[in-house]
Amino acid sequence: MPESLQTWAEKVIAGDRRAISRAISAVESREPAGVALLKVLFSQAGKAYVIGVTGPPGAGKSTLVERLAAEYRRGNSRVGIIAVDPTSPFSGGAILGDRIRMQTLAGDEGVFIRSMATRGQLGGLAPTAHDVVTILEAAGCEVVLIETVGVGQDEVEVARLADVTVLMLVPGMGDDVQALKAGVMEIADLFVVNKADHPGADRVEQEITSMLSIAPRSDSWRPPILKTVATAAEGIGALRDALENFRSYGEQNSVRQNRRRAKWRARLLELLRQELFQKVLSEQLQNGAIERFVDDVLEHRRDPHSVVEEIIGKASRTSV
Amino acid sequence: MPESLQTWAEKVIAGDRRAISRAISAVESREPAGVALLKVLFSQAGKAYVIGVTGPPGAGKSTLVERLAAEYRRGNSRVGIIAVDPTSPFSGGAILGDRIRMQTLAGDEGVFIRSMATRGQLGGLAPTAHDVVTILEAAGCEVVLIETVGVGQDEVEVARLADVTVLMLVPGMGDDVQALKAGVMEIADLFVVNKADHPGADRVEQEITSMLSIAPRSDSWRPPILKTVATAAEGIGALRDALENFRSYGEQNSVRQNRRRAKWRARLLELLRQELFQKVLSEQLQNGAIERFVDDVLEHRRDPHSVVEEIIGKASRTSV
Repeated sequence: MPESLQTWAEKVIAGDRRAISRAISAVESREPAGVALLKVLFSQAGKAYVIGVTGPPGAGKSTLVERLAAEYRRGNSRVGIIAVDPTSPFSGGAILGDRIRMQTLAGDEGVFIRSMATRGQLGGLAPTAHDVVTILEAAGCEVVLIETVGVGQDEVEVARLADVTVLMLVPGMGDDVQALKAGVMEIADLFVVNKADHPGADRVEQEITSMLSIAPRSDSWRPPILKTVATAAEGIGALRDALENFRSYGEQNSVRQNRRRAKWRARLLELLRQELFQKVLSEQLQNGAIERFVDDVLEHRRDPHSVVEEIIGKASRTSV
Repeated sequence: MPESLQTWAEKVIAGDRRAISRAISAVESREPAGVALLKVLFSQAGKAYVIGVTGPPGAGKSTLVERLAAEYRRGNSRVGIIAVDPTSPFSGGAILGDRIRMQTLAGDEGVFIRSMATRGQLGGLAPTAHDVVTILEAAGCEVVLIETVGVGQDEVEVARLADVTVLMLVPGMGDDVQALKAGVMEIADLFVVNKADHPGADRVEQEITSMLSIAPRSDSWRPPILKTVATAAEGIGALRDALENFRSYGEQNSVRQNRRRAKWRARLLELLRQELFQKVLSEQLQNGAIERFVDDVLEHRRDPHSVVEEIIGKASRTSV
């Protein structure tokens, strides 16, 4: 039904909440209609400032994102929020179950909030998050906030979607967080020390400063360190100013364009990997053919590399 | 040089440490020689008891693995150890830098220790770990211990390689660990409360017991909870006994076979995904062709789904 697809797209672009919600669901469950819709919407996307917010559990990311969204709403920008939940690939159960939140934004028609769970998705969460950003951009969001926990590969991949990445830390976290920082220091364009009214905030700031002095950066930006008390909405205006500074910086030189190029290259290659696999899977491995191959490997009659070579060889002969 | 490949394989099977080390390196860097060697070695593999040990940072996994290896060495089994380091996909730098360890095993010719780092590998770490297990099995290891941190997707995938999974916890860890447990509870066949001489060990045990009473399991095994003080080698014999109990249990019914089947199915599909992608990448996207597609998407002239359809369409016409 191409006409209804067009209507659906028009509703999304007009900011219709139900249409947007259905669009995201279609993309998340990888329905063909979702892909068809994305194709229509894509020319309308690419205009938002995509802000990634990451940090360890308990840093106050949800509250900060909520406050920041409210701050941008003051300027009347439509705001999209994607909250990424790390979940067990075994049970699909959420590790962090605090999604009944951001209540201050609940009645605001200019804010779209979506939680996404990993659920051991083929190819990870990043591909879907990519498409959700496209939908939110087409729906007129001028700012999209992506909140991740910043621990696993998935979360780091999602952070790569952003035009700017905010790393949140808090006073009084143990050595594990110190260790974690080493891995994510380089992705941070801005640091936020949240719960800055707690003892030890200055020490965290000093640690970041000393780590920054040795951390390499591929551009000339010097990541600022901001202090906030998100629960009391303190420091949010200054954070917004810092985010806008980085936006200007990124637009004046090639930083923003380079990141977007890297992002789309990764997206294209990931999509190619996924689609090729699905095509061969559906054409070559029907009716339990894969189980016969698994049996061979399980009994150590044949090695997996030879089996895969055979499958690809057959695919070549019939067309991919 | 098929003859030298044969010699190499024979040396690996004989337990030659340099040959094993070279084999693992070849597999890690995905050299064609590594794949060729794996094909030769595969028929010799599949005989080890693969034990996964996971848990939060600071739980004492390295020490426990070291003690457990020594325990199995007492029975004269050759033992392989794979220690997985979570690393930043951005810098390649290790988060946990404590790899100068397991010194008590250093002089033992019957123990092979290998650290593996993620380094943002295409397709994650699990595929390589798979192949390293194959090499260690071919080299005569009757027991292979895989140590992971059990936080990210990568580590959980690696845990899937194991015949049995040990989840380590320690007294006095904060709420974050409580949250973490929920995600990994289901993969644990045995629980170890390490540092059991510290206050709070009984509380951790009670928490596990109460979580177990509501956790679903697809088999009839009831995961035991063991207490250890790994630094003092206390409780290691009992842990070995429990591991052997699970081994007997798994062999007497279909548990072990089902897990191995699931493992090889996942490995075959992952390998297929990777090899298909590499083939199309090398055949269709040479000489900067991908950059022209990236430009189109970056400028929002074309959407990524349509671009990927075109690439796959071309591949179909020429042969995969």
